[in-house]
Amino acid sequence: MYQDEIIIDGLQYCHWDRAYFESLKASGVTAVHATLVYHENARETLTRFAEWNRLFELNHDLIMPVMSMADVRNAKALGKVGVFFGAQNCSPLDDEIGLVEVMRKQGLLIMQLTYNNQSLLATGCYEQEDSGVTRFGKQVIEEMNRVGMIIDMSHSAERSTLEAIDLSSRPICISHANPSRTHNALRNKSDEVIRALTERGGLLGFSLYPFHLPDGSKCTLEAFCQMVAETANAYGVEHLAIGSDLCLNQPQSVLEWMRNGRWSKSKDYGEGSASNSGWPAALPWFPDASGLKNIYKGLRDIGFSETEAAGVLGRNWLRFLEAGLEPAYTQTS
Amino acid sequence: MYQDEIIIDGLQYCHWDRAYFESLKASGVTAVHATLVYHENARETLTRFAEWNRLFELNHDLIMPVMSMADVRNAKALGKVGVFFGAQNCSPLDDEIGLVEVMRKQGLLIMQLTYNNQSLLATGCYEQEDSGVTRFGKQVIEEMNRVGMIIDMSHSAERSTLEAIDLSSRPICISHANPSRTHNALRNKSDEVIRALTERGGLLGFSLYPFHLPDGSKCTLEAFCQMVAETANAYGVEHLAIGSDLCLNQPQSVLEWMRNGRWSKSKDYGEGSASNSGWPAALPWFPDASGLKNIYKGLRDIGFSETEAAGVLGRNWLRFLEAGLEPAYTQTS
Repeated sequence: MYQDEIIIDGLQYCHWDRAYFESLKASGVTAVHATLVYHENARETLTRFAEWNRLFELNHDLIMPVMSMADVRNAKALGKVGVFFGAQNCSPLDDEIGLVEVMRKQGLLIMQLTYNNQSLLATGCYEQEDSGVTRFGKQVIEEMNRVGMIIDMSHSAERSTLEAIDLSSRPICISHANPSRTHNALRNKSDEVIRALTERGGLLGFSLYPFHLPDGSKCTLEAFCQMVAETANAYGVEHLAIGSDLCLNQPQSVLEWMRNGRWSKSKDYGEGSASNSGWPAALPWFPDASGLKNIYKGLRDIGFSETEAAGVLGRNWLRFLEAGLEPAYTQTS
Repeated sequence: MYQDEIIIDGLQYCHWDRAYFESLKASGVTAVHATLVYHENARETLTRFAEWNRLFELNHDLIMPVMSMADVRNAKALGKVGVFFGAQNCSPLDDEIGLVEVMRKQGLLIMQLTYNNQSLLATGCYEQEDSGVTRFGKQVIEEMNRVGMIIDMSHSAERSTLEAIDLSSRPICISHANPSRTHNALRNKSDEVIRALTERGGLLGFSLYPFHLPDGSKCTLEAFCQMVAETANAYGVEHLAIGSDLCLNQPQSVLEWMRNGRWSKSKDYGEGSASNSGWPAALPWFPDASGLKNIYKGLRDIGFSETEAAGVLGRNWLRFLEAGLEPAYTQTS
């Protein structure tokens, strides 16, 4: 039964307020990977953590922070929504290797090595040239492996992604992207990437962001589930999950911050264009997190077993994160 | 027996390296309150945490981080030295109330509201005018009470200290200072302060820094223990402990950073003077943490029971911190 399962959405960046937390709780989702920062540096990241601490304080009846998968199980038992944090860029590190552990201890469980552009660590998927993982990037991958911070290559370029998969001693994830063979887009991933990722125990979260889907906002539930089924047949259902990329109730200014940060004087439209610069229209069958239940049903309807559907909707994230977040060291024994 | 007791030094700022950790372990000390920062802002404090993470990584056979008193008991069982962190100033907060919880989560267990000068929170003991706890200071005290961060008024002025004791809903500490009646110095504390502190369940850590002692570096062990005995008679031995202020192997530049930070163009000599600007000579009976055992013996010799002496040498800190570090809220229930 859907309502008995642990349901995890592997990427959201909504306007986080009490009304939204109420809708999250009502949706039946157990835990959400919330984007903490896009371009914020180390100091600014502390302020984001502080803002979330205040949200936890004011909404403790609805949400709770997640530092490990034990907290997710606890959230399920308590009927609260667990929230865990990721960065869509490596900006919280500034240029300092030691901040990997500092940020991990503060609650940054997942970090992308790049966000579309070249970073200090690797190349983003919008660059013309992909020079792979940098010297600093190699150090950071090793350190993320050590402290148990999950490497996410959702917005990274092909070569950088393949190198990160190879360099990392632990499985990595692509938290929110779709196969290029279903929909060819800069943000989607080639068969080669998905094969390398899954062969090494990695996880792919399917995105519900219309720019990542065939027919955009008109993509049907059936077509989405068909994409999941084809990917499951090719690479194994145990490696597949959801990272909806749900961005609800956010003003245009947030979209511009995501796309432009502080790096561009001329406006960058990301996956949009000058004539289509706003947020894409939501999928009718995925208006908010309640749509996860539609996906569960849709997967069952095209032949996924209960176990398989529950895996995609949460258990696969749970298992992946449980292993990946365990530090490779102990300090108190 | 001394070696069976939990021994806690409530303030050190030594040059932290492997050789020193070996001497700490050999001294029999169970845990040390290490000063993390003097004047570092929020961002710089992250680097200090990162440096300590590296020290824990490289010296895991000797030291371990302490986030709660359970870790101190664990350190005792493992034969390692536990290290917990405090700030001698409120500079890690910048001007942001939310950083109290952020820094607490990172491992800042204790914070002074001022370091000699006026801060954003209160007045330091070297200012001419003591205007008491500020508007921001009142907010921070309440927040420190909420998250379980210990308030320390060692370097604060009289009125500010009395107000902090009164404003705080939980007992506070003066981690390293002595009674003014034993030795009159700007950094030492009046009977009124020690009475208010201890009546509210607070803790006084006696300092071994020669500037805080009668006869400076020539103060005898007997005179030191006599001071402890007189204070115990007046205010109760359960409120007394040690905060040695041990600063070993530090260059002159560190003393100047402590005294001058970035605030002074003309050189400030703190407790010293132009003709006496260096580190004071160590007490012969307290050359390093091994001297704690001399204090234990000295206290026994002038009539303290085993329980009383063990209380001053560690159990009083343990009990005080165990209560004080418990957050006044839970996020995961």
